[in-house]
Amino acid sequence: MGELYLEDFAVGLRFISETHQIDAGQIKAFARQFDPQPFHLDEAAAQTSFFQGLAASGWHTAAITMSLLVKSGMPIAGGLIGAGGEIQWPKPTRPGDVLQVESEVLEVKPSRSRPERGMITVKSETKNQKGEVVQILTSKMLVWKKTAHSQA
Amino acid sequence: MGELYLEDFAVGLRFISETHQIDAGQIKAFARQFDPQPFHLDEAAAQTSFFQGLAASGWHTAAITMSLLVKSGMPIAGGLIGAGGEIQWPKPTRPGDVLQVESEVLEVKPSRSRPERGMITVKSETKNQKGEVVQILTSKMLVWKKTAHSQA
Repeated sequence: MGELYLEDFAVGLRFISETHQIDAGQIKAFARQFDPQPFHLDEAAAQTSFFQGLAASGWHTAAITMSLLVKSGMPIAGGLIGAGGEIQWPKPTRPGDVLQVESEVLEVKPSRSRPERGMITVKSETKNQKGEVVQILTSKMLVWKKTAHSQA
Repeated sequence: MGELYLEDFAVGLRFISETHQIDAGQIKAFARQFDPQPFHLDEAAAQTSFFQGLAASGWHTAAITMSLLVKSGMPIAGGLIGAGGEIQWPKPTRPGDVLQVESEVLEVKPSRSRPERGMITVKSETKNQKGEVVQILTSKMLVWKKTAHSQA
């Protein structure tokens, strides 16, 4: 698939990423740096916690989701530039989980003030190997217009 | 400050974290692993991009925000367990930025179905050394009740 401009997007367009397998080492390494809480760092402590077992930081799931989107999930021309969005973690990500991101375009909106660009709203569900949704991200992303781009 | 239970929270309660200085090495290391796009990896490529200079991945800003909240931002008893939230990045995080998180409790809500817990809604603004907001995160977090806890 080539790089996509605003004109290439339509509501309902879907993308499926490659997969990434997470393990306990990755979970602990991310947690040590960014989310040093016992349930992300230590199996025994995690067992008696809310999570009842080692769980990845939600921000780790988010970061892996981004890496899958960047590498394989959605080839936006000029890159994936997010302005923000909503994020939910319905279930924890566990060691051994194989994550994959399914994205769907919810809205395509040319900018009123900036003729060369627009925004798309994309819902990205990150699923594990059982098909369970571990993260739902609804994000607004900047997309360039092809016409404006080729004139630049 | 001791560890906080649901009874300790009230709308308007504020928390200020310690600071974290980000540099180009951290930005590129995070990007290589989770967001390998030219504007997060290479100064020259970033200069001609939308960001007009090296910028941290928004997910890196989010991860640093989490680390500041966990280490110093908000001492919730049992840890910081987020169910999700909204995130915006009004400005990019740049090399050399000194980040600090200011949080304010927006809502405190006991659970109807689970007497031992509740949820708080917290708005966390991540600011740089100039006081510019680089991230706004409004998150829902699980908080335990003191009464339920001491009976357990």
